[in-house]
Amino acid sequence: MSTESAEDRLIARYFGPLAQHPGALGLVDDAAILVPPTGCDLVLKADAIVGSVHFFADDPPSAVARKALRVNLSDLAAKGAKPLGFLLSLALPDGIGDDWLAAFASGLQADIEQYECPLFGGDTDRTPGPVTVSIATFGSVPHGTMVRRGGARVGDRVVVTGTIGDASLGLRLRKDHAASTRWGLDPKMRDHLLDRYLLPQPRNAIAEAVRRFASAAMDVSDGLAGDLAKLCRVSGVSATIDAARIPLSAAAQAALGHDASLIEPVLTGGDDYEILASVSASKLEAFRTTASALGIDLTEIGEITVGDDAPRFVGRDGLPLKFARPSFSHF
Amino acid sequence: MSTESAEDRLIARYFGPLAQHPGALGLVDDAAILVPPTGCDLVLKADAIVGSVHFFADDPPSAVARKALRVNLSDLAAKGAKPLGFLLSLALPDGIGDDWLAAFASGLQADIEQYECPLFGGDTDRTPGPVTVSIATFGSVPHGTMVRRGGARVGDRVVVTGTIGDASLGLRLRKDHAASTRWGLDPKMRDHLLDRYLLPQPRNAIAEAVRRFASAAMDVSDGLAGDLAKLCRVSGVSATIDAARIPLSAAAQAALGHDASLIEPVLTGGDDYEILASVSASKLEAFRTTASALGIDLTEIGEITVGDDAPRFVGRDGLPLKFARPSFSHF
Repeated sequence: MSTESAEDRLIARYFGPLAQHPGALGLVDDAAILVPPTGCDLVLKADAIVGSVHFFADDPPSAVARKALRVNLSDLAAKGAKPLGFLLSLALPDGIGDDWLAAFASGLQADIEQYECPLFGGDTDRTPGPVTVSIATFGSVPHGTMVRRGGARVGDRVVVTGTIGDASLGLRLRKDHAASTRWGLDPKMRDHLLDRYLLPQPRNAIAEAVRRFASAAMDVSDGLAGDLAKLCRVSGVSATIDAARIPLSAAAQAALGHDASLIEPVLTGGDDYEILASVSASKLEAFRTTASALGIDLTEIGEITVGDDAPRFVGRDGLPLKFARPSFSHF
Repeated sequence: MSTESAEDRLIARYFGPLAQHPGALGLVDDAAILVPPTGCDLVLKADAIVGSVHFFADDPPSAVARKALRVNLSDLAAKGAKPLGFLLSLALPDGIGDDWLAAFASGLQADIEQYECPLFGGDTDRTPGPVTVSIATFGSVPHGTMVRRGGARVGDRVVVTGTIGDASLGLRLRKDHAASTRWGLDPKMRDHLLDRYLLPQPRNAIAEAVRRFASAAMDVSDGLAGDLAKLCRVSGVSATIDAARIPLSAAAQAALGHDASLIEPVLTGGDDYEILASVSASKLEAFRTTASALGIDLTEIGEITVGDDAPRFVGRDGLPLKFARPSFSHF
């Protein structure tokens, strides 16, 4: 009589090989062991992605796995934290077979290696709903140094990594293939936008620089406009942003050239997984140089100001942009 | 223009008041801060519960919240760990309204206080599927002392807390109300079984005793027979269990008196959330006395033996019981 359940076999087959950290105990115990680094605080984050909400049912399973981990890693990066590991709760509908699981595990393995963020444990369940991937990540910072949202000071410069709006446009393209022609995109531009939606590129490479230089930071997951508003609210400040300085990819520039109204999804659509930070003027150049040496562009887009109004995004005409909905929200 | 999203308002309204621990930062940051206790290891566990799989859609929302937390707390108890806190990822279908959320939060608050396990953070998402509650818990043990599954030694006694099989019978009653009459249950017995399914009673009160006395331990979540088999497999041992000594509630005894075949769901059905442990004969009495002083019965049910066979459950007739499926599994 075999006493090993199908669930045990599934875990042993697909996830056991991923759990190389000794604290994971090979996934054969009830829980994992993490020996906290001496003198460090742990930075904790949980975020889930749900099929048909955060990804498409026919997205490659490896990309689903990587997106689930990366949306969490992005938060660690913005807090200045080094990844220590993660826990995974995976709810699977009927019809998910070996091929899907093997590809999912393979994508997860790639990111475990790339981001040096080992799997510590988790569970698998059946669901009558869509694939749901819930991840809890934990990182470390030297005691007392986690970068918060609430540290922005009047006069600080507002900076953002990479480019903004690509994933939001990529999601529109994913739902409306014809938009690529309307927006005048070549295949490379189209693929760039689609890729940015499919697979976030979190900025963990500059986590330490964020910790050294930023006065406040968060990752841009719900749209630049709304996320900056959150940072300002917690910091008790406002901001003025020069919309023309917001970094855009060639693809986003091309799309905006054909349809200026796309500025709204670009600034409010979310899924950027860039880092938004405030930095004192005296540290701006060092922050930018450090990021650049790590291959990440850091662009100054505005300034922290006095007040409790929502941040103003000023257009080329000198007038503030108006957004129907500044921030992505599921509710 | 309000820059606060409906999601932010939902979190602020229902979960903000629960996040009293300073490391939760009032749920207004991207991540939480945990300062690890000096000299301790962290014990990490993630477990999710899914509507129509682990609970019924019409279960009281407060019980859903408490079950989600308690199935995780039960693992910490079995590992000898003291709860430090948890992260919550909540996926909600359309139609979940304020009343449901208020009751859910209220149940969570009750257990946060009862188990001294604060909320550190999390996220909320929409889902086209059922309510899905994914929790990641973290506890602490003095460095190197987490109780594992793999420490059972030949000659150790096998012990279990509380009573076995109640939740499994409660689930059957929940699906088949008429069974209460067939099994000869009075209303109090019926309610006892239903309650044990609805709301686990994890044994966190004796976590420290488990750490002091047990050579191996796990919580009984997938059925005593299968879970003991897992403990034995990892420990490289077998076991002989005297089925007549397995502690049963008055309700389970009554049901078994009317239908002896219920021994199968009692021993393999799961959802017990009792602690199964091995303990050297020399420590058994101290373990039992300590547990008893904390109001928890600890019953010796058998012995760890040499071998790699599945544990034998010996019936009153001296013959081993046979199970169609020794362990609950979703797959």
